Amino acid sequence: MKGFRRLYNLTIPYSPVLTQEPLEPILRTSIPGPKAQALFALTKEFSQDYQTAKLFMNLEKSIGNYLVDADGNYILDTYCHIASLPIGYNHPDFVYALNSNDHYKYVLQRPTSNLPDKNLPTLVRETLMPIAPKSTDEVFLTCGCGTSANELAYKLALTHFKKNNPNAVDPEIISFDKAFHGRLFGTLTTTRSKGLHKVATPAFKWRGASFPEIKFPYVENETYNQKVEKECLEQLEEMLKTKNVAATIIEPILSEGGDKIASPNFFLGVQELSKKYGALFIVDEVQTGVGPTGKFWAHEHWGPRADPDIVTFAKKMQVSGFFHKSHITIEDSEDFYSKYNADHIRLLNFKTIWRIMQIDRLIRNASHTGSFLKGRLSDISKKYCISNIRGLGTFLAYDLPNEAAAGKLVKELLSLGVNAGLCGDKSIRMRPSLVFKQKHAEVYLDRLECALKRLS
Amino acid sequence: MKGFRRLYNLTIPYSPVLTQEPLEPILRTSIPGPKAQALFALTKEFSQDYQTAKLFMNLEKSIGNYLVDADGNYILDTYCHIASLPIGYNHPDFVYALNSNDHYKYVLQRPTSNLPDKNLPTLVRETLMPIAPKSTDEVFLTCGCGTSANELAYKLALTHFKKNNPNAVDPEIISFDKAFHGRLFGTLTTTRSKGLHKVATPAFKWRGASFPEIKFPYVENETYNQKVEKECLEQLEEMLKTKNVAATIIEPILSEGGDKIASPNFFLGVQELSKKYGALFIVDEVQTGVGPTGKFWAHEHWGPRADPDIVTFAKKMQVSGFFHKSHITIEDSEDFYSKYNADHIRLLNFKTIWRIMQIDRLIRNASHTGSFLKGRLSDISKKYCISNIRGLGTFLAYDLPNEAAAGKLVKELLSLGVNAGLCGDKSIRMRPSLVFKQKHAEVYLDRLECALKRLS
Repeated sequence: MKGFRRLYNLTIPYSPVLTQEPLEPILRTSIPGPKAQALFALTKEFSQDYQTAKLFMNLEKSIGNYLVDADGNYILDTYCHIASLPIGYNHPDFVYALNSNDHYKYVLQRPTSNLPDKNLPTLVRETLMPIAPKSTDEVFLTCGCGTSANELAYKLALTHFKKNNPNAVDPEIISFDKAFHGRLFGTLTTTRSKGLHKVATPAFKWRGASFPEIKFPYVENETYNQKVEKECLEQLEEMLKTKNVAATIIEPILSEGGDKIASPNFFLGVQELSKKYGALFIVDEVQTGVGPTGKFWAHEHWGPRADPDIVTFAKKMQVSGFFHKSHITIEDSEDFYSKYNADHIRLLNFKTIWRIMQIDRLIRNASHTGSFLKGRLSDISKKYCISNIRGLGTFLAYDLPNEAAAGKLVKELLSLGVNAGLCGDKSIRMRPSLVFKQKHAEVYLDRLECALKRLS
Repeated sequence: MKGFRRLYNLTIPYSPVLTQEPLEPILRTSIPGPKAQALFALTKEFSQDYQTAKLFMNLEKSIGNYLVDADGNYILDTYCHIASLPIGYNHPDFVYALNSNDHYKYVLQRPTSNLPDKNLPTLVRETLMPIAPKSTDEVFLTCGCGTSANELAYKLALTHFKKNNPNAVDPEIISFDKAFHGRLFGTLTTTRSKGLHKVATPAFKWRGASFPEIKFPYVENETYNQKVEKECLEQLEEMLKTKNVAATIIEPILSEGGDKIASPNFFLGVQELSKKYGALFIVDEVQTGVGPTGKFWAHEHWGPRADPDIVTFAKKMQVSGFFHKSHITIEDSEDFYSKYNADHIRLLNFKTIWRIMQIDRLIRNASHTGSFLKGRLSDISKKYCISNIRGLGTFLAYDLPNEAAAGKLVKELLSLGVNAGLCGDKSIRMRPSLVFKQKHAEVYLDRLECALKRLS
């Protein structure tokens, strides 16, 4: 452990993080290589559960922004398990903290809601409450994925609504076109990103509202953009007038649906209308939360008037759940009871991760790297067929002319040692970890230009 | 680590397990004690998420069958996080294995479905496939709780049904009265154990079938019992004739609903009717699986004709998911995609647990201890007001005259240092871990008699 910074010794200002990373991708085989192909063949013997697997990792060897695959290729990871990796792979300070922490007891047993460990209340309070969105004052933990966070938030909103409107018929949760909130029955009803998710799964009759189709850069198209935002808000108001809406839910950037984003005014408009008609305003920060946009919560970009009633989280947070205003009460928690109300291991992990994020100013880094990336992507868009560069911090996306071109670009990037992700119909989204720095952005941009050149 | 048996050295036949347990409960304060009360007060500051908490544990000091609470009381645990603790607390062999294993990389990062670790396929195959129910040949992993296992099983069944019946209207999943399959939207529709779970949460219009009201002992009331079983099967057949049933789901012992059980003939009847009308037969083994009934899967008690299409699991398995027949196919896994298709840590843990279960013959132990318990409970029922002793292995329950009496008994047992659990209207259920031996049963029975005496 020699050479590792002590996490709790703030007198050491700089972390020797990422010195073990290569300077650029190292490719030893084509991707997927022979070992990965053998693994894909193996899984087919006993499961259909690996159809979305793209690669197999060597988790032990992966380091920083570089994912190492089963064949020993070092791949620059700009997708990071769909935005789930906060501080890269095997961050040395994290390894150090794990070795000196009391994770063991939590790795061995998994306590349930009815028998929490005595350290859990303090751990939750000290780890989660300092990052609670400022409009909220309580927290509720769920089983480990974003879907469970949103489903339980819906149950809370529906219960709260029933209490205030005992005679309302068929209360609903309104979501937006191209939203993604999960794949179980309640959340799937509100997910509107891809038709195929819903082919055989029954859904409730909850309505979807339109999300404005913004043109980027926003400012250059301001008149048009404000007009479509206004139209969408008017449509939403008509929907809310039915008075049976328990909640509206929105992502600050509609990620799976193609990184759709609007102005703070639009989001604040949704908030205002929700409150006016007695619907709770839920902000789904499962993908946007924990720093990648340059603020801890993406909805902080809406300014001081941002006032969500419930904010859901998962992914980079390691644990899942939601923050909420304390006046939204659970009278009989039997109805809410979530079998595993905290994954103690991952809560301890997040405690360390948050410490590293603060010491290394990783949210500021996301903001800085993001500005650099956005500027350079804009330059590239003048030479090659990418457009609509949008987003906040490193949480960025751009469009290709069509779906086929976007698919080809992702493949080309992988062959150059870069893991990238698609979203929407024809967009590439960037979801690097928070330790993605300018030097990594430079490698990315270099490979991107190379890939676009090959494809043009 | 000296003195611990090496798990992989089979030449050492006996494990020095449980020698660190006390001989009986040790009470230092009343329960909850002052430290627990302070913790309850603390949680109220920032969360309503602890309403079902009964105690706070000292997870580090808990050992074997003895849960140690925040105040240092040693409590004999016969409820075990609602049947979730397979080999007791801090089993020495488990601690040893953890220390010598490569858990670290999995504790640090949590890989998602689209980027599994290269060791995952082998780990899944070698750990889970040997225990697959014999009618199944594939496995699908979900996010960590029984609810996710059942919800994804429903999605699979509905997709399969849609493929074979493209024009069927509103396909449904039929469950049984008093069933419990989870608390999210799809599973809540099929959960019929308590009305309060559904007060404000919308549900699909799926029907519930009757479960026979058996009188115990079964054999002494055989004519009556067979009659009610037959009536229930006839009613189920009428329901299945609508031809829009994608699946039936049943627990081998309806646990939350009051440990309701019927004869193997009844369950085989449900299976036969389901197959006759083209519905998949799902067995929910979330609570009954992994040995407590005296067989690895409780449905093995139905004999060689047992042939479920899908078997769901969680709790003692550490990971959640389902086994299924391979002809039930997932054509587009985007629709099924489960963000975290395996909790690598818990899969490694289950590998060790299963090894310990085999070496120490813990399933045989459950069978032996269960027989002893059942006989002695029957003796006690002649002296005190407990009745309807039922169940398999140590997965046992008995009734009190009414709900109030059952609630009082649980409290009285806790004051005597025994953690017990309620189910249904007026039943006490036993859910000890698999290391619950005759000597622990004797302590339990002694305290139970004492509590019943005080209450009579």
